Amino acid sequence: MKRVLLVTAYDGTRYHGWQIQPNGDTIEAQLNHHLTELLSEPVAVIGASRTDAGVHALCNLAVFDTSSRIPAEKISYALNQRLPEDIRIRRSMEVAPDFHPRRVESEKTYEYVIFNDRFPMPTRRLYSYFTYYALDESQMQRGAEFLIGVHDFKSFCSVKSEAESTVREITDLTVERNGSEITIRVSGKGFLYNMVRIIAGTLLEIGQGFYPPEKMRDILLACDRGAAGPTAPAHGLTLVRYRICGLEIM
Amino acid sequence: MKRVLLVTAYDGTRYHGWQIQPNGDTIEAQLNHHLTELLSEPVAVIGASRTDAGVHALCNLAVFDTSSRIPAEKISYALNQRLPEDIRIRRSMEVAPDFHPRRVESEKTYEYVIFNDRFPMPTRRLYSYFTYYALDESQMQRGAEFLIGVHDFKSFCSVKSEAESTVREITDLTVERNGSEITIRVSGKGFLYNMVRIIAGTLLEIGQGFYPPEKMRDILLACDRGAAGPTAPAHGLTLVRYRICGLEIM
Repeated sequence: MKRVLLVTAYDGTRYHGWQIQPNGDTIEAQLNHHLTELLSEPVAVIGASRTDAGVHALCNLAVFDTSSRIPAEKISYALNQRLPEDIRIRRSMEVAPDFHPRRVESEKTYEYVIFNDRFPMPTRRLYSYFTYYALDESQMQRGAEFLIGVHDFKSFCSVKSEAESTVREITDLTVERNGSEITIRVSGKGFLYNMVRIIAGTLLEIGQGFYPPEKMRDILLACDRGAAGPTAPAHGLTLVRYRICGLEIM
Repeated sequence: MKRVLLVTAYDGTRYHGWQIQPNGDTIEAQLNHHLTELLSEPVAVIGASRTDAGVHALCNLAVFDTSSRIPAEKISYALNQRLPEDIRIRRSMEVAPDFHPRRVESEKTYEYVIFNDRFPMPTRRLYSYFTYYALDESQMQRGAEFLIGVHDFKSFCSVKSEAESTVREITDLTVERNGSEITIRVSGKGFLYNMVRIIAGTLLEIGQGFYPPEKMRDILLACDRGAAGPTAPAHGLTLVRYRICGLEIM
């Protein structure tokens, strides 16, 4: 038996998220199905980040155990022959038998992209959230700064979450405009359920001038989901970077 | 009667190109259908650039004549309510009754994007051509330079073309790498059928080291389609900029 790590990339548009669902196709279901066929033994992957329906990833992680003799680093090539073209394995490698992607020290970076112009751009519609309300990205950046550091992010956590603690650390959070696109880039060691999308929804309200950037401090201190903005739509979100023990996984 | 100019953007993935076809949906067919419904009179648009199946555009132009009383600049909003989400009208405006988008002095810029890495990136698969062969973009850039200026581009013209003259001017042509993506950006006053895709296919061969950049001069002088590289796939190509009489159309 050996444990194999997969670095996956996917376009989440067609999927009901990462995690296996009774109804609807998922990334996890696709991986299990094609690995089981390829390796001729039942395979069940353990995912790192269980992304929501519609969320994209450039580098999500999964591990599985196999008794197959196929060298671990060859599995990516063989699996890519079978997977649909909106899922790709960027790398496969053997890891220690007790390596668990959710129990290891890691840092993830997400990007939330907003297309802010008078009309949506068809070629960006699947990977960005469109709004024609004029957004002030410098105000958004000022609001974002209040969230950097270790805080209780209860206000930015879905009420459906079952997390024991809502304290997390955001190591970096920036807002940048490039033409019509505003990118919210957030890094942290762990995120609560819907946390990045609620941060994006709140920054969208600040960008529209609903309230000043300083209100972000009050929203954080309220520890109440009702204090923050709405959960921004899933398709604007992409998991763009994964680090394990300080090592960039590519 | 008035003549209205539309600035269109579209994701070409689902379409059989711009021009109306007996079988298969096209951008022109969609515009005619929805304009005819919106304005309650038969409308037939005249397109500027008849892009191939799978090619994308950020700013292609079309004009049509109408006796409707709807103000020209409102038509974009009304039409966007009806069009599928992979076609958008960025702007509509009244123009002179004899304005013809193919008979006016214009400059177009196309981008051909190559995703050059070990594996394709799912979120870029619809808008870039993937190749895992290592490409040397500096050699591609050197080859590209031979094409700038006024030349007979017969070697870079589909044999299916019926153009009387194959002399055209390329005003700018650059090759740049940004991470895994190589962008070939070409500007000119007019292009032959498949010209940009044949240039891209030839630069791909130079990038792989099949022949040195200097061979581009011989290929140009040959005035023979067989001398150039293959026609690169359509989905890597996007019409990104349109200028009319030196004025940027947005």
